[in-house]
Amino acid sequence: MTSTKKKVVLAYSGGLDTTYCALYLSKELNMDVYTVLGNTGGFSDEELQDIEDRTKQLGVIQHAALDITEEYYDKCIKYMIMGNVLKNNTYPLSVSSERAFQAMAIAQYAHSIDADFIAHGSTGAGNDQIRFDLIFKIMAPNAEIITPTRDMELSRETEINYLKENGISANFEKMQYSINAGIWGTSIGGKETLNSSEPLPEEAYPKQVVKTESEKLTIGFEEGELVSVNDEKLTPLEAIKKIEAIGSQFGIGRDMHIGDTIIGTKGRVAFEAAAPLMIIQAHQTLEKHTLTKWQMHWKEQIANFYGMLLHEAQYLEPVMRNMETFLVDTQKKVTGTATLKLSPKYFQVEGITSPNDLMTDLFGQYGETNVGWTADDVKGFTNILANSLKIYYTVNQE
Amino acid sequence: MTSTKKKVVLAYSGGLDTTYCALYLSKELNMDVYTVLGNTGGFSDEELQDIEDRTKQLGVIQHAALDITEEYYDKCIKYMIMGNVLKNNTYPLSVSSERAFQAMAIAQYAHSIDADFIAHGSTGAGNDQIRFDLIFKIMAPNAEIITPTRDMELSRETEINYLKENGISANFEKMQYSINAGIWGTSIGGKETLNSSEPLPEEAYPKQVVKTESEKLTIGFEEGELVSVNDEKLTPLEAIKKIEAIGSQFGIGRDMHIGDTIIGTKGRVAFEAAAPLMIIQAHQTLEKHTLTKWQMHWKEQIANFYGMLLHEAQYLEPVMRNMETFLVDTQKKVTGTATLKLSPKYFQVEGITSPNDLMTDLFGQYGETNVGWTADDVKGFTNILANSLKIYYTVNQE
Amino acid sequence: MTSTKKKVVLAYSGGLDTTYCALYLSKELNMDVYTVLGNTGGFSDEELQDIEDRTKQLGVIQHAALDITEEYYDKCIKYMIMGNVLKNNTYPLSVSSERAFQAMAIAQYAHSIDADFIAHGSTGAGNDQIRFDLIFKIMAPNAEIITPTRDMELSRETEINYLKENGISANFEKMQYSINAGIWGTSIGGKETLNSSEPLPEEAYPKQVVKTESEKLTIGFEEGELVSVNDEKLTPLEAIKKIEAIGSQFGIGRDMHIGDTIIGTKGRVAFEAAAPLMIIQAHQTLEKHTLTKWQMHWKEQIANFYGMLLHEAQYLEPVMRNMETFLVDTQKKVTGTATLKLSPKYFQVEGITSPNDLMTDLFGQYGETNVGWTADDVKGFTNILANSLKIYYTVNQE
Amino acid sequence: MTSTKKKVVLAYSGGLDTTYCALYLSKELNMDVYTVLGNTGGFSDEELQDIEDRTKQLGVIQHAALDITEEYYDKCIKYMIMGNVLKNNTYPLSVSSERAFQAMAIAQYAHSIDADFIAHGSTGAGNDQIRFDLIFKIMAPNAEIITPTRDMELSRETEINYLKENGISANFEKMQYSINAGIWGTSIGGKETLNSSEPLPEEAYPKQVVKTESEKLTIGFEEGELVSVNDEKLTPLEAIKKIEAIGSQFGIGRDMHIGDTIIGTKGRVAFEAAAPLMIIQAHQTLEKHTLTKWQMHWKEQIANFYGMLLHEAQYLEPVMRNMETFLVDTQKKVTGTATLKLSPKYFQVEGITSPNDLMTDLFGQYGETNVGWTADDVKGFTNILANSLKIYYTVNQE
Repeated sequence: MTSTKKKVVLAYSGGLDTTYCALYLSKELNMDVYTVLGNTGGFSDEELQDIEDRTKQLGVIQHAALDITEEYYDKCIKYMIMGNVLKNNTYPLSVSSERAFQAMAIAQYAHSIDADFIAHGSTGAGNDQIRFDLIFKIMAPNAEIITPTRDMELSRETEINYLKENGISANFEKMQYSINAGIWGTSIGGKETLNSSEPLPEEAYPKQVVKTESEKLTIGFEEGELVSVNDEKLTPLEAIKKIEAIGSQFGIGRDMHIGDTIIGTKGRVAFEAAAPLMIIQAHQTLEKHTLTKWQMHWKEQIANFYGMLLHEAQYLEPVMRNMETFLVDTQKKVTGTATLKLSPKYFQVEGITSPNDLMTDLFGQYGETNVGWTADDVKGFTNILANSLKIYYTVNQE
Repeated sequence: MTSTKKKVVLAYSGGLDTTYCALYLSKELNMDVYTVLGNTGGFSDEELQDIEDRTKQLGVIQHAALDITEEYYDKCIKYMIMGNVLKNNTYPLSVSSERAFQAMAIAQYAHSIDADFIAHGSTGAGNDQIRFDLIFKIMAPNAEIITPTRDMELSRETEINYLKENGISANFEKMQYSINAGIWGTSIGGKETLNSSEPLPEEAYPKQVVKTESEKLTIGFEEGELVSVNDEKLTPLEAIKKIEAIGSQFGIGRDMHIGDTIIGTKGRVAFEAAAPLMIIQAHQTLEKHTLTKWQMHWKEQIANFYGMLLHEAQYLEPVMRNMETFLVDTQKKVTGTATLKLSPKYFQVEGITSPNDLMTDLFGQYGETNVGWTADDVKGFTNILANSLKIYYTVNQE
Repeated sequence: MTSTKKKVVLAYSGGLDTTYCALYLSKELNMDVYTVLGNTGGFSDEELQDIEDRTKQLGVIQHAALDITEEYYDKCIKYMIMGNVLKNNTYPLSVSSERAFQAMAIAQYAHSIDADFIAHGSTGAGNDQIRFDLIFKIMAPNAEIITPTRDMELSRETEINYLKENGISANFEKMQYSINAGIWGTSIGGKETLNSSEPLPEEAYPKQVVKTESEKLTIGFEEGELVSVNDEKLTPLEAIKKIEAIGSQFGIGRDMHIGDTIIGTKGRVAFEAAAPLMIIQAHQTLEKHTLTKWQMHWKEQIANFYGMLLHEAQYLEPVMRNMETFLVDTQKKVTGTATLKLSPKYFQVEGITSPNDLMTDLFGQYGETNVGWTADDVKGFTNILANSLKIYYTVNQE
Repeated sequence: MTSTKKKVVLAYSGGLDTTYCALYLSKELNMDVYTVLGNTGGFSDEELQDIEDRTKQLGVIQHAALDITEEYYDKCIKYMIMGNVLKNNTYPLSVSSERAFQAMAIAQYAHSIDADFIAHGSTGAGNDQIRFDLIFKIMAPNAEIITPTRDMELSRETEINYLKENGISANFEKMQYSINAGIWGTSIGGKETLNSSEPLPEEAYPKQVVKTESEKLTIGFEEGELVSVNDEKLTPLEAIKKIEAIGSQFGIGRDMHIGDTIIGTKGRVAFEAAAPLMIIQAHQTLEKHTLTKWQMHWKEQIANFYGMLLHEAQYLEPVMRNMETFLVDTQKKVTGTATLKLSPKYFQVEGITSPNDLMTDLFGQYGETNVGWTADDVKGFTNILANSLKIYYTVNQE
């Protein structure tokens, strides 16, 4: 005989909010709870095991940890690299981008087990609630959405007490910050990020500076995709992990992002994202050597808006696919290697080599010599270039 | 009796090219040479005196050092700050922007003395030739333009030998790099910048790192304009100088820029620009707190193009005035103070305070609590936001 | 003794929905109903009197007809002309734009009488509900919003029956179309506009074609503002009315608009807007003669987005003020007169005269002769212009 | 024995300028002249024969009429339709676009016969000189460019006299206008187009109005490409010809274009282009029904710039290929049929049918009924949408 209980799929991260939800859904709402963790590269095997173990205490019927890192790279990170996407020139959209892939994986899972409900632990004050709700509504329209934390406006205290009363002891009290880790960066919120004036203290960053001497790092690209690190051929995901491992030892890639939430408020968050920041700057430098002015101009237009829509839960908007097609098409010549110099807390792209480098001596050297044209050519050029302004100032007698 | 010689006004910087030109115009072309130096804040009094002294050896009739720093701030730097203008997300347009003001000052000088010719020392391989020629053609259409270095394709060696033969001994040989200094940054070209792969060596930067301990710095803005540094009230120019004096001790603001020249080649240049980079990032952070999403979006659109046109010698294009008007109009609430932490070679904006800060607790705290809206409001919001995609995927059965 | 009833201000148009609301609020909700009509130029004196008379049958305490046409011109139409704003290259935003001004006037009125509620007759399926709600929430936050038609999902039939039962007999049955008239155009919805394939029949347009012979019309502008029609000096509002009176006799300015609603659906509407279409095309032609390429480019960017935000209820977004400032700044030279030829159902701008016309013989004639430059200048120009492509194709061996 | 004469390939149209050039090159410069006509669909077989016959009088060695219409469609017209490209919202770039394809065909021909020179008949005052020169420099860098009309600043009179003296009698005198015809429209310059105020007289248009009764026309698209006219399946080129044949009988598609030339002047031209204008408006209406708001927004951004670059001789700029890829990617759902009503001198798109029509009753009817959402959803939506403005006005106390 099958259960007559309602089935609910819960987007589960192992944090306080979703742990509360798991128990609440199972115990108070008397549902069959399926927890699903969408892993985007931010969990170690040990952490995943701990999380799975805990679900057993919470009355969960079944737990699934879905590794969606590869799909996340193929369908999103790749394009953020090609587009050099940094929100407000700062933030690599670490959380904003992975939520879409977690939501899609969870919606598919819910569909596959014919769930009656989908639940998530978002509060009513952030972006994630929109990102989950919106994708669930489109991809799992038959499952009703439940959000206990948001609906009951639960405080951390209330949640911790409820868990304690039910014999679930985790060290949630210790956490001063809410941390979200994925392959494209770690976001840290809480305390200082709730005001406008304070930086995050050094110790709040999960990864600490352990290197003091500068080091070189080379990153290789082929048609805009990562292919090697320090001359070692790697898959893109391997490359990101290796660059992150090296860069994070220097404490590279930390910053604060302050931006507009989808619900109209300003939100501030700290992050550490060594790999995203180094990869993007390396890639962008390579593009400056291999793309034309108008290619760079239009890539920036498209990519900035791509980032904005991605941030605002619009991954499924069809224009996103058109933009991705555009970005890929611009990368045909973005092949070569960038050399970076890493130092504690900062890095510099020192230069690039590329078979498609448009900075070439074939036609002269910048500021030095001209081979492909004459002084008279430039004089003619400038005279014609001046035409519209000569006409404007003559007609208007200014 | 007035001279029957032709009058030529020479844009003079004291460097090798223009020193050659001064002598050549006076001696070979037998002209009355008026040298004019457009000082944008990059010369000490001593340097100015040295330069003036040397002109006497070159047969120059009259030398004028015009201090145009204030005009340059009022009509350009101010807008570059308001627009957070960094070419290709990197370069504060140090040289690109000041050339327009030097050219305009020289054109007006030429007009005032009714010059027959205007001369400059640009080669045929860079941007400056266009910037000078174009503005001269519009503002001094009656003066013919002479460019000996460009027209005769002179090498450094040829120029040095000619000066030596004529008894002019300067230590031009020593200069491995061509350096251009102004209040909005110092550009360094030569050697490594002529290829794509090498960084400039430490010693090539004019200002060396002398501080090792981190320091705080505060920068105050009122409606987008600089008003104070470390709580001391200052004029914008004083503020820039003070910030530069502090920041350059840390070696902050160095980078390499690779970009498209007006003549279609790629050009690479090193620069150090502590004040521009710190001021722009401080200002931009303040804007993220005080402007709406669409204000920031449109400012970026306008300002990027403003920077592109400025770079490409189009300062006199009428749309530039329209863009400046737009930028000023966006700054009404950009008032407040940013705190920076300076360390050797890098800095971080730690936070801001502002009476117009839109990150406020009045309507809730990001990710934590919502005061101005309910969970149901967000659900309704997301349901409506999902409409267009629900329709798209339903109609297209995807 | 003052009434203990609650005060409600109702946005009133005299149409079926708001007539229903007036009676419902007064009779069923037992409120003191204040009807306010925000007149944007779409009502004759007779119509206004009829509407006022009817309110007396509905138990309304007080009726106010506010003429907001001048404010609407000064704060919106003016900028739509300067920006040549046509949504999706078609629709002059006739309704979209006036709603903001009606909402603001009604919010102010509600504030002035200290109303407890604000009501409007919008359905739940269109744009107007957002435009009213949003502005009321910002400008009259203390008044609660009531929307009977939307909340009870009332059909036309239900509304008509309710009115009949209460002795209110208007010929609402006859109306097949819902019509909204203002000085910036008349919109017509219903029947054919509810599908994608049918045009509105001739007789559905309020203004019929009465002229058969072509006529000339001249429209004069000074710095982008209307100053004369057929050489007669007029205020902008007078000019719009005169142009409309002439153009509508030809049935000019009719079209169908299909666009995205704020709630994510597609909406289709017919309109007739002789004056807006003729004024905008006359103005735009004048701009093509008096503005530079980049001024036109950026005006179009800004104005298209201005139109999008205006359509989407964002009139109060601060970037709108920045955009208006930009648009005004671009109009300094947009002075002159355009000549139009009107024929039944279409018109053509025949040409313009302007003291600021940049199409001048001073520097040659297009395609014929060149005065300000030589053949060699153009050859040099093209050689330099070709540089980036020569380099690209040489480096990439394509 | 092979000729020791130099080989020149002349871009030949049969007009006065190129007829002059053919004789001049052969007789005065004593070259072996190869005339090449790049036919983009603007010549009848009879005209082509006449042109070929005349070349024999001019001492031409060999004449080639290359039909490049198909390539022109595949590599350009297709994208202009997908992008709804109308320069300055008016001109379908009839001449601007075909020049690139004529230049490329001629450059390839010159390469194939190893020509020493390439010649064209452009004056020094228009756009075409740049379009030819630029493409020749890139695709035939070894052939030197000769432009007799431009270099000698020849007047029409001089050219006519020279031809007469050499026994070449054509009725060039009669031509008051210079006419350029291709499949994507006919441009007419001269007389009235040389000033700003006059329209072209009726009789100056090559195609005269012969129909007086309105007619319906249907145009079918599949993924953005033309597939049928009046329900008859056709290739895109056949469709364009049929639509042109029908539309030109109504005198549809006439207008004046005033725009910025590549050399900085303003240029004015008349055109008739029935097919381009009807096809683009039909296509655009279909897009309004099948694309999302952001797809249309970005298509317009990209396509406007595509048109600008195309106009400015930049067909070979690599970003053009990226833009084309983007445009194609947006067309996947642009399938359906538009119905037009044609009348003398104007037309209207009456509506469309499409399997991908996003205007659907599934989720309600615009302004009437809502199925996929509730009144409360919209209230929540608006409350959240109002957030940023509520915060802005509260913080800033405005």
